[in-house]
Order: sequence, then structure tokens, then C-alpha cells
Amino acid sequence: MQVIPQAAPAGPRANLAAVLERPRRIELRELAVPSPGERELLIQVRSVGVCGSDVHYYEEGRVGGFVVRSPLVLGHEAAGVVAGAGPHAGRIPPGTLVAIEPGVPCRACPQCRAGRYNLCPDVRFLATPPVDGAFTRYLAVPEDFCYPVPSSLTADAAALIEPLSVGIWACRRAGIGIGDRVLITGAGPVGLLAAFAARAAGGSPTVCDINPARLARARDLGLQHTANLREQDIAGLGRYDAFLECSGADGIAAAGLAALRPAGQAVLVGMSAGDDITLPLSLLQTRELTVTGSFRYANTYPAAIALAATGAVPLAGLVDAVFPLGRAADALQATRNDPALLKVVVHPEDVEK
Amino acid sequence: MQVIPQAAPAGPRANLAAVLERPRRIELRELAVPSPGERELLIQVRSVGVCGSDVHYYEEGRVGGFVVRSPLVLGHEAAGVVAGAGPHAGRIPPGTLVAIEPGVPCRACPQCRAGRYNLCPDVRFLATPPVDGAFTRYLAVPEDFCYPVPSSLTADAAALIEPLSVGIWACRRAGIGIGDRVLITGAGPVGLLAAFAARAAGGSPTVCDINPARLARARDLGLQHTANLREQDIAGLGRYDAFLECSGADGIAAAGLAALRPAGQAVLVGMSAGDDITLPLSLLQTRELTVTGSFRYANTYPAAIALAATGAVPLAGLVDAVFPLGRAADALQATRNDPALLKVVVHPEDVEK
Amino acid sequence: MQVIPQAAPAGPRANLAAVLERPRRIELRELAVPSPGERELLIQVRSVGVCGSDVHYYEEGRVGGFVVRSPLVLGHEAAGVVAGAGPHAGRIPPGTLVAIEPGVPCRACPQCRAGRYNLCPDVRFLATPPVDGAFTRYLAVPEDFCYPVPSSLTADAAALIEPLSVGIWACRRAGIGIGDRVLITGAGPVGLLAAFAARAAGGSPTVCDINPARLARARDLGLQHTANLREQDIAGLGRYDAFLECSGADGIAAAGLAALRPAGQAVLVGMSAGDDITLPLSLLQTRELTVTGSFRYANTYPAAIALAATGAVPLAGLVDAVFPLGRAADALQATRNDPALLKVVVHPEDVEK
Amino acid sequence: MQVIPQAAPAGPRANLAAVLERPRRIELRELAVPSPGERELLIQVRSVGVCGSDVHYYEEGRVGGFVVRSPLVLGHEAAGVVAGAGPHAGRIPPGTLVAIEPGVPCRACPQCRAGRYNLCPDVRFLATPPVDGAFTRYLAVPEDFCYPVPSSLTADAAALIEPLSVGIWACRRAGIGIGDRVLITGAGPVGLLAAFAARAAGGSPTVCDINPARLARARDLGLQHTANLREQDIAGLGRYDAFLECSGADGIAAAGLAALRPAGQAVLVGMSAGDDITLPLSLLQTRELTVTGSFRYANTYPAAIALAATGAVPLAGLVDAVFPLGRAADALQATRNDPALLKVVVHPEDVEK
Repeated sequence: MQVIPQAAPAGPRANLAAVLERPRRIELRELAVPSPGERELLIQVRSVGVCGSDVHYYEEGRVGGFVVRSPLVLGHEAAGVVAGAGPHAGRIPPGTLVAIEPGVPCRACPQCRAGRYNLCPDVRFLATPPVDGAFTRYLAVPEDFCYPVPSSLTADAAALIEPLSVGIWACRRAGIGIGDRVLITGAGPVGLLAAFAARAAGGSPTVCDINPARLARARDLGLQHTANLREQDIAGLGRYDAFLECSGADGIAAAGLAALRPAGQAVLVGMSAGDDITLPLSLLQTRELTVTGSFRYANTYPAAIALAATGAVPLAGLVDAVFPLGRAADALQATRNDPALLKVVVHPEDVEK
Repeated sequence: MQVIPQAAPAGPRANLAAVLERPRRIELRELAVPSPGERELLIQVRSVGVCGSDVHYYEEGRVGGFVVRSPLVLGHEAAGVVAGAGPHAGRIPPGTLVAIEPGVPCRACPQCRAGRYNLCPDVRFLATPPVDGAFTRYLAVPEDFCYPVPSSLTADAAALIEPLSVGIWACRRAGIGIGDRVLITGAGPVGLLAAFAARAAGGSPTVCDINPARLARARDLGLQHTANLREQDIAGLGRYDAFLECSGADGIAAAGLAALRPAGQAVLVGMSAGDDITLPLSLLQTRELTVTGSFRYANTYPAAIALAATGAVPLAGLVDAVFPLGRAADALQATRNDPALLKVVVHPEDVEK
Repeated sequence: MQVIPQAAPAGPRANLAAVLERPRRIELRELAVPSPGERELLIQVRSVGVCGSDVHYYEEGRVGGFVVRSPLVLGHEAAGVVAGAGPHAGRIPPGTLVAIEPGVPCRACPQCRAGRYNLCPDVRFLATPPVDGAFTRYLAVPEDFCYPVPSSLTADAAALIEPLSVGIWACRRAGIGIGDRVLITGAGPVGLLAAFAARAAGGSPTVCDINPARLARARDLGLQHTANLREQDIAGLGRYDAFLECSGADGIAAAGLAALRPAGQAVLVGMSAGDDITLPLSLLQTRELTVTGSFRYANTYPAAIALAATGAVPLAGLVDAVFPLGRAADALQATRNDPALLKVVVHPEDVEK
Repeated sequence: MQVIPQAAPAGPRANLAAVLERPRRIELRELAVPSPGERELLIQVRSVGVCGSDVHYYEEGRVGGFVVRSPLVLGHEAAGVVAGAGPHAGRIPPGTLVAIEPGVPCRACPQCRAGRYNLCPDVRFLATPPVDGAFTRYLAVPEDFCYPVPSSLTADAAALIEPLSVGIWACRRAGIGIGDRVLITGAGPVGLLAAFAARAAGGSPTVCDINPARLARARDLGLQHTANLREQDIAGLGRYDAFLECSGADGIAAAGLAALRPAGQAVLVGMSAGDDITLPLSLLQTRELTVTGSFRYANTYPAAIALAATGAVPLAGLVDAVFPLGRAADALQATRNDPALLKVVVHPEDVEK
């Protein structure tokens, strides 16, 4: 467990937040420092990754059926330092660096009680309307959704436990194990982290994209097997045990399914603009392929942290740019505009730089 | 185990078969009585159910990618009596009524060795080109694909162990258990047998169709919960734990998926003319639905026979017409033309009636 | 959903409870009517089954590691009528008859979050020291642990949803499905309810005991296959797919394991006085048998109620005697002393009879 | 695929074998070169690992219920080069180095058909009476039980695919995945290979033994976490997700079980002299632990070879001594007598050295 001297040991400072007032308009505002509930911790946020969904909210004010109807704080890939505790919290000592699991479910519905809390209809997920996110200095978080990280991880790496969880969850749903050949489409952060997770589970991932720079980056990070789908057909890559679709590209799901061996497993992780996907029924049947979607994750944080602690996933190596809180809009625009940036993070403690 | 006095104890008679010479043209021919291989039994066929695939071969000369290129004997839902044995067979005594599992796999490929022998690329399946089927008096079958049935089952019921296996397999793939609500679309023989299997596994099936006569028949057979999809929308039926699509109707897969609870399971059993199915990606993701196809079955015959033996599935009650071998073409046409006929069987021992 | 006119619509009456003051000494006391918490219902208890664990607490003041250190209300198989609601409860209307799931977990530990809330180290389970149980007129219960039952079920049947859940859970852990042969040792309430659950899941149960009266009772209730282990050896009963040990008898686990087919599953449900069980290692290995214990249940109540609603489990038929609250001690003694009594229930609304 | 120039391209030479005539008496004899069956390959054996079971047969003439009743060739961890093919074999070209899976099942029993062919009652397993093993120059093996290995693997490494399979199978049965803490007792070859497999599947293994030299060897091979159970109690090591018992030591199973978290999985791999193991029933129940044995493996060779090909398991590093065929008895004695020798191999092509 890693204890970090607090920035302001005398007590929380003013809570600044980057608030999305309307599409493409973010303002820095001073909010009240939240008061941690009974079993909550007060977290001083240290690093927040920018996710594609943040960019969508910023640009379009919506992601699929989730619509921003009032000012919203973005950011859900977050890590920070314990700065306070509610009356029945406090197992994790002040100053501890923690990864924050951003979706807190109701704990009482059938999904929660069955261990599928990611499917809770009443989940409160950071930066998902109307719940404010982590582009802010202070957050109150239930203690069991705060996970101490070992001292080998930086705050940026701790923030990326969130997308690593997405990758681990996809691998769990695909049942990846030793020796499995894994086809991964999309070399963005989720695709790469899914590839590292697949490798950690014993699989052999092949990462596909149409952007040669992203594929080169994947190789630089240690993922040797890549394929440029502009130059190669998926069908020519061989037969796979599992297929993790992380691009959201049109038509790719059907192509990936065709590359699966009998009884192969496909997990659709990437969201797409057009909602309908077309699949070949006879192939699903004669090979008994299984197709499922993945939605966030459940019970992955301890595994993700343990994996990151082994050094097998170069989380910090994914971070290409750091922005202060006051430039959160720039962080979002950079993520959208510059495909060479794999992961951008925001540091809420830095107001400007 | 049920031992039936053999029709011809003095030895096999001439082997007649109904041969599909070309689409819509079946001739009765005399074939050689097959000689059972080392571990095979010689079976005198007593009853053969007519399946939709037989009708397709008869009418169009093909089912999906399987094309009839030379004369073919149809029929794969078969039961018969042991009439002989190869040198290393004979555990099952002569005269025993057996259900015949029609697909014999290679036993050596990765699929076979992993227990998924229904996905064996080299399976030899009765009445699937170029393998002849069961509209014949004698078949040689590996002994481990012959299953004695208890004396409470008739030869017709034993033949229907095959489609019952299809239903059980769909239920296994959907993971149906006690208390599960199961949506079944298609009230043909497979849909009804899937419904009986779902009920036997502890589930509560709702059978849907657009043909009121089929739904009335379902209720007469004891399946109380039915819905006419011309009158009711699937969306209004409630939330289901599992969905077994047994109709092959266009668009029904997406509608059924929308009726599933989070983490619900869909199994696509029915084949359709147009191969592409369109599914709602965001629903697959936000509810983490699982979609898979089912292809025949593996390791179901003992379970299907045990289930039939309890009397919980009125197999004989599904049989609406019996035809002699010489009228196999009429059996196929009747199945196609008369939707009131749930299951038609052919008795190869009867040449004409 | 079944709505029952409340006994006292004008508001809760005095709350009487049968309190175990010390081993073998129960007194009727007036307690405060509990005030339902935020998400709790106030339940007027109508029927409470007597379980072997209640008898152990009554006789010896302990069950295994659970020791009664201060006065305790016994009873955890309970059903009652909604009589009030906390400020954020009330989805279930007043007057509704509900089955009460007696173990409320912390909802935050790794076990709870993984859906294994029965293994929560901080679970509060009725009548498990120091948590008071249901031999009382009023209980406050979280609303999500109250389950409306259909009008076909009596309050006694609703109380027995608890031991039926034990049986369903054992079957789930054993993976019982269509056609499975299931060996069940112990013809007490749990053994019989496990047998009914196994049958409902498609299995064929054989119930074993050494008490011929209990076996006759099992047959009377509709469980046809029984074996008296004083007269028959388990080894002679054949090969089973699953084994549910519900007796706690010495040495029976090893005998039952030996009756399992390769890859068979054993679930140890019955608790025994001596804690050590001896198992044959080479058999576990060469047949790759799986042995597990079961502890209460998780996520079973909806399934148990759905099953009871089908009429396939004669819950009310298990009840052999009814005692008023003032005779709770007699109910416990009768359960201990009279092996002919399968299930005894206490009706807290009746003070004496 | 690795093609090795054959030692004797002109055709098989005389087939020498080391034959166990009676306990502690091995003679070199000339046997007929086997004639490969229809779907078999003729393999020129290049390396055979010595297993503890070989030592038991050599010393005592039996392993558990398997008794040597006539002269027997030992050795089942084998690799060799394709030297011929039966009429329907030949997919793998001559000269290819292959790992040999030593247990060939019947392919027709329920276990085989369900994919659990390791549990086939009629399996023919090398060096298991009365089936001769691999301390010989030539073996006929079904082609689907021969697996080409990549050129990065030596024949010694290819032979050790067999014990690596044992380790992978144990991990599969324990369901080991990313982040799992895995307790392994026994630092012999199986324990170490299980540890490497656990690590490859994403787990974090702790290897325990009472022999400090074996633990030092484990660390030298790259397994950092070890514990000497003479100095440390298992109970003090923490809580584990899975427990792989690979020592066969008395009493260790119960100690390991007590170290498991709720819902933890134990796999008993090590065989012991005394067959009975004693387990704590209440712990199995209140934590719902699962205990199973593992017996050889099924469907592991492709995964084991893929894993070995990554370099993550130092197979060749386990080999401490090489003996020619003529000194097979010395190889067996060295394995028994010198605990510093982790793995000894026999090279059948070398008659003496």
C-alpha cells in the first residue's frame, strides 16, 4: 500500500471542477468539497484518464442513450489519495493512493445480488448523466470502490486500472486461457489493454487496426503480433479461439466471427454509431459460436491491480500527454484530434501549467 | 431394455430404400443389406420422423450449403431393432429397440476430443449429402450411437429422441434451470420439444407462433403458456431469462433479445433462408446478452431417453401421420403442405398401406 | 401476489417473542415492535418452520462454532405479511404475504460483490447468535429479502421456501440437469426438498435413509425411488451423476463418492458432530470427482417460489404439526423427539391453542 | 514445425527397449519395430522423462491399483521424430519432432465422447500395465496423439510437455485466472510446472516444500515466491484463491484448504501412499470450498506447446541428467536417490555413454 504525503494536510482546499456547460464548452468552477457518506472516503483526485466516451459527451452531449441534460463533470478513469473518511469508513488510511472504481451499484437488485453489478439499472457511474465525474479535485467514493495500489504504480497508472479492467472483463467473458489465440480488432487503449490482459491470461493476441501508427505503437509497447486490415484480410490471419472487437468499426464483427474456430467466443466491446450489427446465422449455428457484449466490468479491480503490479502491462507507457484541470477541454480535443495520442490524462491538482 | 421379436428372425430380408433421385422425385429401390463394421450393429429401421430439412432436400435439393449431388436416401430421426452385429459389437442384444443417433463423428479431431463432436468437420450425418439416411430397411450404425429405449417407448417415440435431443441441447446451451422464464419462438416440433425440455429442466416456457392452430396444439399437449405474435408483441410478454429461437422467421431474433433480462441467454436454433441476422449492438452490450447458435447436439441421447421415460414429454402425441416406405414422398409432401401435421413418420417395414 | 387482510389493520400490536433464555428454557416475552429501517419492511410473522439447527441451539446452546451467549429468539424459516415500511421501502404493498430470506449480507465485501453473499463474513442471519430470529410477531427485514408468494401458497408453504432454497442451492452446486441420476442420503426435510429440487431440474433422485418410516413418507410424498441403507449397500444402487449428502451421518460421504461416475459431483449439505470427514484420495483422482460443501444459498428465492408455484413440491404436505408461539419449546422438543414429524411450524400470531 | 534429419534415413534400425523384468531388474532387449496402424505414426523416440510413477513401478512393481504382472517397458514422458506412417496417417511429415501424448482412449465411451478422455476406463497409457512405455527406440502412436513442436524446443523440452500438461490441467480444474493467488505444495517437477502454468494463466503462485534445496531451485528457475513449511505454517501465508496439492504429503490437504478464501478451489494432484485424506467438513461448508482430484489431462497438448513456445516455462532448465537407454535403471535410481535432481531423461538412441 502506497501512502503519499497529502498536498494539503491542513484539510481540503477549495474544490475546483471542469464542468461541461454545454457541448464544447467547459468552465472551471468552484464546487463544495463533498462530504463523505457513512461508508465513503473523500478522495483528492490525482489523475484522470480521458476516455472516448468523455469526448463524445464533450462533442455531442450524448453517448448512445445517455444524454447530458444539465452541466456535467466529465472523467471516470480516476485515481487519487485518501483525504478523509465518513463515520463508518477508514479502513484505508489517509494518504493512500487508490484506484477508483467509478460505478457504484444499488447493491440490492437481482443483478447486484447475483454479482453482475455492472448490469445494475440503478448504478451511479462517474461522468454518466446525471452523475458528475472526476475532472475535479475531490470526490466522495464508497470505501469498497477505492483500491490501494502498490508503490510501483503512479497515479496515472492507477487511473488506467479502469480501462485495464475493461480489457480483463472482456477476456473473462471470452474465457481466455493458456494457449488461446485471440483476435483483437482496434488498437486504441481498450484494444491494447485487452491484448495485454489476454496475454496475461495465457493467450496469444493479434492486434488489428487500419492505422499503421497505432499498430507500430502496439509493437513498441510489446505486443508483437499485429495486422493492418487495410493490407490483410482477417480471413487470412488463421483461426482464433476468441475474438475481442474493440473498434466499433462497421462490418468488423462479422469478419471476426468468420475467423473463429468451432465453439469460439466473440466479445463485442467497441461501441458503434450505427447500432445494428449483422451476423451470419449459419456460421453462428454450424460452428456454435458465442457472441456477447461487454459492459464495463465487475469484480475486476483487484485482478487488474495485481496484474499491473507484475509489470506485465506498461500502463504508464500508454500516457502520451498530461493536462492541468484548467485545460481539460484541451485534453478532450487532443484525444479527439490526434490519433497519435494513445491516452491523455488530466491532473486536477494542477490548475494551469 | 426393450426386446422386440424380430420381423424376420431368419435373417435380413431385402433392403428397400426410398431414394431421392432428383428434387421431388423419390423411387423405391433395392439396396444391399449393409454389412456392419467392426464395432457396428445392423439395425432394422422401424420408424423415421420427417424433418424440415428432409423436406428442403426433397423440394430444393439443398439445405443451406449442403447440396444433393447424387441420389440420396433421406431421413435421420430414426429408431429400429438390432438385427446383427459386427465382430467387436454386440453388447446390445439382438431384438433390442434402439434410438439411433444419426451423426457419427471422426473421434480424432480437436472438436471430437473436446466433447463437441457435433462440430466435427468430418461428421457423417444421416441424410446429409453424400451420406444416405434412414428411409430404408437396414442401417449399419456404430454400437455407441445406438441407445436401447425402455419398453414404455414405441418405435415412433424412439425416433423422436432425435428432435428431443435438439431441444435438450438448446436448453443446455441456454443454461436453463429451476425457475427460469423461457421464451420460445416457433411452435413446430423443435419449438415444442425445446419447450418440453425447458420445462423438464425446471423452466417455465412460453411458446410463441403466428399460427393459432399450432398454439392450440401446444396447449393440448400440455404447454399452457402460449402467445400469438400476430396478436401480441413479444415486448409485452415480460422479461425472460432465456430465449430459444426455433422458427427461423425474419427479425424475430432481435425482438426476442429485447425481451431478455440482463445477462440473458439466446440460442438460435431455427435456420432461415436469408442468412444474415441483425442484432442491436447496444442491447447486447448494456445487458451483456449472450447469443449463440445450436447445431444438432452432443451427448444428449441418454438424457433424452431418460426424460422420455418419465412420461413428461408426449413424444407419441406429436405423431400425426404414419406412412409406409413406398409413400415416403407423400410423407414429405404432407409435412410441407399441411401445417396441422406436427410430425409425420415413415415406417420402412411397411412398403405400402 | 397475495394480499392478506391484516390481523390488526389499526397498527402493530404488542410484539411477543419466544426467547431462549438458556438451553432448554424458552420464555414468552414482550419486545418492542421493531422500527423498519430506510429500506426495510415491517413483517408480521405468520409461520416459522423448526429447523434442526434451532433444536441444537435449544438443546445445547450451540451449533458448531456458533454459540448462544445471551438470550436469543430462534427460528429462521419464516413467512409473514407486510405490516409497514421504512421511508425508502414500500414497493411491496401492505398485506402481502412474503417469504423471508433470513440472511442479510453486508453487500460490500468481495463475496457479496461477487454474488456469493451466502459467504459474507458479516452476514446477519436470523436465529444465529447474536441475531434474533423469527419466533416473534414482528420482524424488520430489508425489502429485497422479502418475496411475495402467489396465492396458491399458504404461509406454512411460504416459510418452507427457506429449506427448499437449501435444496435448490445444493442442486445448483451439483450442476444437476435433465437425465441426471442423483443419490441423496438423508430423508429429513432437507434431503426430501433436495430430492424434489433435483427432480424439478430434470434429475432422477434416489433417496436413502436408515429409517423406513421416513422412506415411506418420501414415497407418499411422491419420491418413488428410495433405498434403506440398513438393507442395501450404496454400492449396489448403481452409478450416479451427482450425490447430495443431507444426513451428516458418519462415513456416508465416502460411500456416496464411490457411487459416482467419473467426473461426478458431490455436495455435502448435512452437518455432522465430528467435523472430520475421510475421503478416498485415489478415487477423487482417478475419477476426478468434485466435492464441495453447501452453505445456505444465494439468489434462490425467486426460483424456489416459482418452483413451489408449479405445485411440483408438496411443501404444505411436509408440515406435520403446528404450534402456537407460547408452545415454541414444545415445537422444538417434538422435532427432536418424534422422527415421524417431518416438519413442525410455529404460528406466532397464536399465543396459545 | 521442426524437421530433424533422421538418424537412420534408410529405415528403422533394430528396436531396443529397456524392459522391467521384475522389480529393480531392467534388461535391454531387442523388440520388433512396431508396425504403425491405419492412423498411426511410427515414432523414433528421442527423449523420455523419468516420472515418479516409473520409479514406483521399478522399485515396488506397482503404483496404487496398477500392478506390473509381466515384463513392462517404462517411460511415458516422451518425444521423438516421425519415422513412418500407417496407410491413413501422414499429415505430419517424416522427420518432424513431436511430443507424444501417452494415453490413447477408446474414443467411444461416455467419458471420451464428453471430452473427458482422461477418464476413459479403457485408455491405453504408456508404461501403465500391461501397456509398454517409451524407454524404447520406436513407438507406434495414433497421429492425433503426436504434436509437432516448434524449432525452439529441444527433444528434452518436448518430452516435458507431458508433465507441463499435468500442471496446466490442474490449473484449468482450479479455474485459475488473472490476479489469482495460488498455493502450491510440493516443489518437484509437477509442482514447479503447475506453478509455471498458474503464472502463465495470470496467477501468482507460492511454491511450498520442506526441502530448502528444491525451493532454492524453484527460485533459480524464476518462481520468486516460495515458503519452507518446516519454518513457516501455511496458515501464516495468507489467503489463496486456489490450492494445488502436488506433494502427496500426509495432512497437507487439510492445511491447504484452511488457507483458501471462501469459494476457493483445491485440486489434489499428488498421490499418496495412504489413500485416505481427512478434510474439515465445516470449513468445506461454511466457505463452500471445492475439492477435486486431477488425473492426467485432456486436450492440453496444444496449449502446453504454445506455452512452452513463448519461453515462459524453462522446460530444458528442469533437466538435470541425461542417461542412455542402456542405463535406464540408473536413471530411475538417480531420480529416487538424489533429491537434487529435478528431472532425469533417457535418450533411447544412445545405448551407452
